[in-house]
Amino acid sequence: MSANQTTNQDKLSSLRKQYPALANKTYFNFGGQGPLPTPALNAITGCWQRIQELGPFTTDLWPFIGKELNSTRQQLAKLCGVAPHRLALTENVTSGCVLPLWGLPFSHGDHLLISDCEHPGVLAACVELARREGLEIDTLPVKNLRGDPAATDAAVIDALEQSLQPRTRLVVLSHLLWNTGQIIPIAAVADRLESHPHRPFLLVDAAQSFGQIPTSQAAAAADIYGFTGHKWACGPEGLGGVALSERVLAEANPTVIGWRSLRNESKADLSEPDPFHRDSRRFEVATSCVPLMAGLRCSLDLLQQAGTQEQRLGSICRLSGRLWQGLADVAGVTPLLSVPPASGLVSFEWGSNEPLGDLVKQLGSEGIWIRDLADPDCLRACTHTFTTEEEVDALLDALKRLATA
Amino acid sequence: MSANQTTNQDKLSSLRKQYPALANKTYFNFGGQGPLPTPALNAITGCWQRIQELGPFTTDLWPFIGKELNSTRQQLAKLCGVAPHRLALTENVTSGCVLPLWGLPFSHGDHLLISDCEHPGVLAACVELARREGLEIDTLPVKNLRGDPAATDAAVIDALEQSLQPRTRLVVLSHLLWNTGQIIPIAAVADRLESHPHRPFLLVDAAQSFGQIPTSQAAAAADIYGFTGHKWACGPEGLGGVALSERVLAEANPTVIGWRSLRNESKADLSEPDPFHRDSRRFEVATSCVPLMAGLRCSLDLLQQAGTQEQRLGSICRLSGRLWQGLADVAGVTPLLSVPPASGLVSFEWGSNEPLGDLVKQLGSEGIWIRDLADPDCLRACTHTFTTEEEVDALLDALKRLATA
Repeated sequence: MSANQTTNQDKLSSLRKQYPALANKTYFNFGGQGPLPTPALNAITGCWQRIQELGPFTTDLWPFIGKELNSTRQQLAKLCGVAPHRLALTENVTSGCVLPLWGLPFSHGDHLLISDCEHPGVLAACVELARREGLEIDTLPVKNLRGDPAATDAAVIDALEQSLQPRTRLVVLSHLLWNTGQIIPIAAVADRLESHPHRPFLLVDAAQSFGQIPTSQAAAAADIYGFTGHKWACGPEGLGGVALSERVLAEANPTVIGWRSLRNESKADLSEPDPFHRDSRRFEVATSCVPLMAGLRCSLDLLQQAGTQEQRLGSICRLSGRLWQGLADVAGVTPLLSVPPASGLVSFEWGSNEPLGDLVKQLGSEGIWIRDLADPDCLRACTHTFTTEEEVDALLDALKRLATA
Repeated sequence: MSANQTTNQDKLSSLRKQYPALANKTYFNFGGQGPLPTPALNAITGCWQRIQELGPFTTDLWPFIGKELNSTRQQLAKLCGVAPHRLALTENVTSGCVLPLWGLPFSHGDHLLISDCEHPGVLAACVELARREGLEIDTLPVKNLRGDPAATDAAVIDALEQSLQPRTRLVVLSHLLWNTGQIIPIAAVADRLESHPHRPFLLVDAAQSFGQIPTSQAAAAADIYGFTGHKWACGPEGLGGVALSERVLAEANPTVIGWRSLRNESKADLSEPDPFHRDSRRFEVATSCVPLMAGLRCSLDLLQQAGTQEQRLGSICRLSGRLWQGLADVAGVTPLLSVPPASGLVSFEWGSNEPLGDLVKQLGSEGIWIRDLADPDCLRACTHTFTTEEEVDALLDALKRLATA
């Protein structure tokens, strides 16, 4: 280990102490929910106290609320590589993906092309939309792409070529597949869609990418790039965002409409043909929890202290690589990826027929936390910037014991 | 003042100290947002710490999260007079009203009957729904009903009779009108709708009623009764609920769909015709901020310490009555209601042509907070259980000074 790396390790282990959830367990479920650092909780509480001091409903408070909203919007927009007017604040990934989805201009008979690795929530929303609007659903097969990045990128575009229909109007993909851990070349997909005569929209579920891998290129290229702050960004649950293309802002109507969607929130004008904001606020709804914004900004600032996006992804991959490599020595285990992961997601099949939920609980009883997934049937462990080599080795040791038990 | 009242005043002024927002100002904007009591903020923080200790994503945590959800659902359901399976947790009033609205079974040409006192957000959502589904919008005039409760109740039913169309499929009303402060007899409206051949659904905006006036009869009678915890209940912003009728649960489909809507959240089955929960969770979406639930429960418990619902409404009306009465002595001012208010909302027209926003700011500079409304153009001051007579008198004095300035 170089002197530089040692300094960095010292900094990381000092930062790590700010995350109480990491103190009493060996935690690998960053893809489920990230640990909330104490300074973020303090920022949330402080924001609430300030709201009580100035408000909670006074003209003295509005400039403070305005600053909270604007600075959060700006910080998230910057990470997404878009101007702030393209960034809507949402409650979670689903609302980011699904609120704009329902307002897209579909015609009866249009096709939706959905990858076979999407989260059940987004998928079910598309199925219900298709039922109501008379749309067809096609499947884009990406589940079995588990090789090296360059080959996979080419294979994704190839699968896209074969799956696109003349009436395809929407493509739904995750930036980082939550089950296999494969990264999808979103910008290349967006490029390909631009030459399609039916101008399909590109909806991207960014649940696993935001806060973990660089997102700006993909978010700026997608039409709808929905993410949450409570996974890899280690923010509070209940706050996320969505980056929207100029085309979505111009062509899509809001569905869940509240005072935040409206240009004039104090008086409705029934004769106004488009009473909504022209920018991202079009897809914002109504009162939400402003103090969470102070928490998320603080969490993102702390991550930055751990290094640039590239440096952090470097640490993450060094640790996920160690885990992936070590799994080769666990009897019966097969990692889903055939090459070291390009992110912190490490999914693997378990050899025996033991229910995976039981294995998860057994590891949990030793204070080691991973999760099981249903499709494909596998276990998933995630490494974050703050994960240590000792934790990875502890997981590998525990898995080895369970595999030979 | 009786000995009983004195004891009660002592209890109230001791409870009042728990609300820091009330300490440094004279506050009348409970209908905008209620003050958050310190024990509720502590409950929120404590919940977050517990989540970090047990989780944030572990099988050790799920029983705790389950208890938080269930106990909150039960407490809100009880206040709404419905079984817990009819109560969905939402982010705000809008999501409570609008999420189930989009899944109601409408046919092209159906009519929506909307009162002329609805909040611009709900109204705009109905207009957009009507545009997409080819529905007609009719208006139910209730803005000018400002008399005594019995006469108004009869007048509401009369207006309803005259406004219902053969194809009316939805009626939208607030339980307590946010502008005039008139209470609408929701249960009687629901009764009348039952005999209508097109079986209209009844959607009720309960933003101003929940936490202030008894809600169980109206909530149980409505099809969609959407409310928030952050106004009269003095809970944190970002958490509300909606009571749903059995008919909505059986006949309406969810629109904004996420993992919480699904019976099997881990794997989507595309062939399943109705993959959603059969109960209220059908209209819940995805990850939200669980710690807010601990806060809202705590806020509701504190309110209960201030007396039963009826006792609290008694205090509220004693104070709003004092304000309403005192306004008679303010030059140029006309209260919207011609009788003492049956709730804490006191709206009044200002005689001169001075912009109302300026008056609000001027009062604010003296530490007295009320708000202005655009339709009808008026000022609104709200009294809550914790409001004091001295505060009411201070507002009246300030208004008198401004009126003669």
